[in-house]
Order: sequence, then C-alpha cells, then structure tokens
Amino acid sequence: MSLPRIGVFDSGVGGLTVLKALAEQLPAHYLYFGDTARLPYGTKSAETVARYAIGAAHFLQGQQIDLLVIACNTATALALPLINQAAHVPVVGVVEPGAAMAAHVSKNRAAIVIGTEATVSSHAYREAMEKRGLVVYEKACPLLVPLVEEGWVDHPVTEQVARIYLNEALAQAASNSDVLVLACTHYPLLAPLLRRIVPPSMEIVDSAESTAREVRKVLMDQQLATGTKDADHRSFRFYVTDSVEKFKRLAIRFLGRQVDHVEHVDLGG
Amino acid sequence: MSLPRIGVFDSGVGGLTVLKALAEQLPAHYLYFGDTARLPYGTKSAETVARYAIGAAHFLQGQQIDLLVIACNTATALALPLINQAAHVPVVGVVEPGAAMAAHVSKNRAAIVIGTEATVSSHAYREAMEKRGLVVYEKACPLLVPLVEEGWVDHPVTEQVARIYLNEALAQAASNSDVLVLACTHYPLLAPLLRRIVPPSMEIVDSAESTAREVRKVLMDQQLATGTKDADHRSFRFYVTDSVEKFKRLAIRFLGRQVDHVEHVDLGG
Repeated sequence: MSLPRIGVFDSGVGGLTVLKALAEQLPAHYLYFGDTARLPYGTKSAETVARYAIGAAHFLQGQQIDLLVIACNTATALALPLINQAAHVPVVGVVEPGAAMAAHVSKNRAAIVIGTEATVSSHAYREAMEKRGLVVYEKACPLLVPLVEEGWVDHPVTEQVARIYLNEALAQAASNSDVLVLACTHYPLLAPLLRRIVPPSMEIVDSAESTAREVRKVLMDQQLATGTKDADHRSFRFYVTDSVEKFKRLAIRFLGRQVDHVEHVDLGG
Repeated sequence: MSLPRIGVFDSGVGGLTVLKALAEQLPAHYLYFGDTARLPYGTKSAETVARYAIGAAHFLQGQQIDLLVIACNTATALALPLINQAAHVPVVGVVEPGAAMAAHVSKNRAAIVIGTEATVSSHAYREAMEKRGLVVYEKACPLLVPLVEEGWVDHPVTEQVARIYLNEALAQAASNSDVLVLACTHYPLLAPLLRRIVPPSMEIVDSAESTAREVRKVLMDQQLATGTKDADHRSFRFYVTDSVEKFKRLAIRFLGRQVDHVEHVDLGG
C-alpha cells in the first residue's frame, strides 16, 4: 500500500507543531504550505483569511493530496466551512480536535481558551466546547505570536506579558476552570512558561496531538492509513510564499529539526 | 489653482503619522492606501515587499494622483527604485528625508537607527547617512510594532522591551552617538517612552516632518503646490485591503482624529 499524501496548511511556521505531532503518529508524504508572505492571519478579517486559505487549499490539491489538515487555528476558526466547500479531499481542522481534548480532560466543565484576536473573535472554540457542555472564557493574546517569533520563548518579558493576559483571564473566567486551551499553534512553545503562571491544578492542552489522532481516524475510514510506524516511511516537502531562508531559520525551533526541500511559491497575492 | 492629489502608501496604519505631518503642512486631496491584508511588511523579504508596493502604487495611480509618498520605511528601504520605475508620477520615500534630518541635527556625526527587521537588513538608512558623513549603528526592534498595535504605547512591558533593544544598541554603537532615528512610522507613538530611555543629550528624529517638507518642495518644483494653508482645503480618502472597521479603530491613535471615507479594496492577493 502506498503512503497517503497529507497536505498541511498554516499561515507560517506555527503549523509545524501540528506537523510534528502528525509525523510522530503517521507515516505519510507530508506537503506543508506556509503562507509566510501574508502572515499573520490572527489580526485579519474573516473574509481575508478565507480568501487566503482557499488559495492555499487549491495549491495543495494541485499536489495530489489525499487529505488536507488546516494546521492554523485562525484559518480553521474563520474559514473551515468555506475551505471544505472548495476542497475535493477530506479536510481536518484543529478546532474540533482541540475542543474535544479540552472536554475530555476537564473535570469541572469549565475552561479558558487563549488565541489570536481573530480566533477569539470568531468564538469557534467557545461554540465547539459549549456543545460539549463546558463553560468557556476566551482571551486574545496578540503579543504572544510576535514574542515566540522573536525567539523569546523563555524570556522574562514574555512571562510578564503572559501573566498580564492570564491574570485577566483567570479573574474573568469561571473560578473552577481547570483547563487552559492553547488555541494557537505558536503557543505550545510557551507551554513550560505558561505552566509556571497558571494554577498547578490546571491542565494545559493544545490541538496538535488530538488533530493527529483525528487525521489517523479519517485515513483509516478512507482505508488510506498504513500499518507501518517506521520513521523511514515519511517524506517532507515545504512550500512558502515568502523567504525560504527565513522559513528554514524559524522552522527548526518549531519542528525540532532542520528542514530541507523548501520551495518558494507565488500565489499572486 | 486646484489642489494637488497626493497618494500616501503604507502597509497599514503607521503611515498615518506621515499623513498627519503632511496634512499639517500642505493643503491637498489625500488618498491613503493601507495594505492591511498583507501587513506587516517589516518581517518579509525584499521581493515580496516590492511586489506588494508596486501593486499599491498602481492602484493609487488609477486614482489620478500627482505625487506618491511611500510612507513606509520598509517599502522605501526595499523597493523605492522599483516603485520609481513603475510609477508615472514623482515618488517621495521616507528614508532620504529621515537621513537628511539626522545628518542635520547630529553634531558628533554618529547615530543609532532603529526599525523593522527588513528595514535594518536593507541598510538603506546606514547608506543614506554614511553618504552624509555619519557613523551609523542599526538595530532591528521587531516587537515594537506589535506593542504599539496592542495599544501599549506607555506600558511597563514596552519600556522594558525598548530598554533591552536600546541598551544593546547603545553598547554597540559609537559612544558619542547623539541621534536616535525612528526608522519605522509606528515608532513616533513611542517617542515619549524612548525619551526616558536614551541619554538626555540624544536627539530623537523621525521622517514624518522632513518627508512633508520634501513633498512640499517637489510640488513647488512641479508648480503643483498651492499657497493656502487653510485647513478647509484638505480632503481625505482611505483605502484598505483588510477590515475597514479595524483600520478605523487603530487609525485614531495614529492620526489623532476620527477617519471617515474608508473603503475596502481587493488587490487580488
């Protein structure tokens, strides 16, 4: 059985945290598209993000993918139905798996969600989690992505900024909230720092692993998953809309290893 | 004599600090284009920024402008020659006026330039100032734009971040540097905060006023300037590629007053 071809789409490097979880769980040919010329999506409107995401989906479909992962919370939150309409392959976003994971670990049925301005304004997480019986407080944290991209993942300034955002969230949210959902693919890099800020009893969850499990399930349903877990049975190709060099430089931090096979593509934007 | 039509282009809201200086000095019809769907430019490659800037220049030329101001340091630094080639009207960027102002006020012929990653990597300011006999140290400050856009213009975190960047710059630059050049149109909003950090003897200069003077000069050369300074003889139109509402919300902070007549345009990107 030949390996499935999985398209993974993000506005930039953040989706590499999802790719990492996927690659650990699933042998496949991975085609990663980072729309780095137009990032960040998190500060932009639903219309603009949808237009960009659909362009990326079309590009990846041109690469004969079997399944498309929207490894970007903002694009999933704002444009998943539109991407689904435009795509000819199964599409998996990160919001539903993340919400399901939060519902799974929350004992008190109350959670805090942190993400970009666009993700939070869409209330996609709140809706997905309310459906599962949780009380949800959402908080936008616009400075965390720039801080991660500056490489300040364990820096006193980042800790101070995160404290400001989280203290506000903790003061406003239900007092028995016991889960913090990282609704942005950049935030897993801040997990150790966030761990020091939130109460010890609070669980921190992100969408990467649960999305990977969902992808495996969809592939099995489509009889596209292979049994092998052999690390040799993986390949990676990266497509970016801005500088290849800059992507390579940032990618190591997210993927935990060097990336090769990075190509520049121009979607005409 | 009818009023000149002046196109003003920036990646977002930062160029409004230049528009403000222009409007104070020059009666004109102002057409401001903010490429908010693709901002920020400061983290992107020269090729991408040039492509975006030329698209914006073409759009503004379609609005019958007499002169085009590139009110964006990154676009000026990376793409002014290309924009010049593509434009059929005189083009004024912000780098030369800013560099000239720095040369004018520096007694010790030594300066520090702070800006985005892309502006600093281009060394456009350093070259323009070295031509004028200055010794220049350039420092990229990627977090300052997100902090200004978060509205934290007088926040302890912003002061701490600015101190980190500036202490590094002050340690590396010539010890007799007596000018700090704000090579990003967002930074004038941080001028009071920066004033508290740099030595009292250091002058802080930005490009807004000197660019406005240069525009007046070009218009006089072309016999397009009018004598009136009457504030009634101004009109403003704004075009943005992302959300109109978000632009209006941020614009007040930069322009110091409410903006009306904001239209969404789609450059197909």
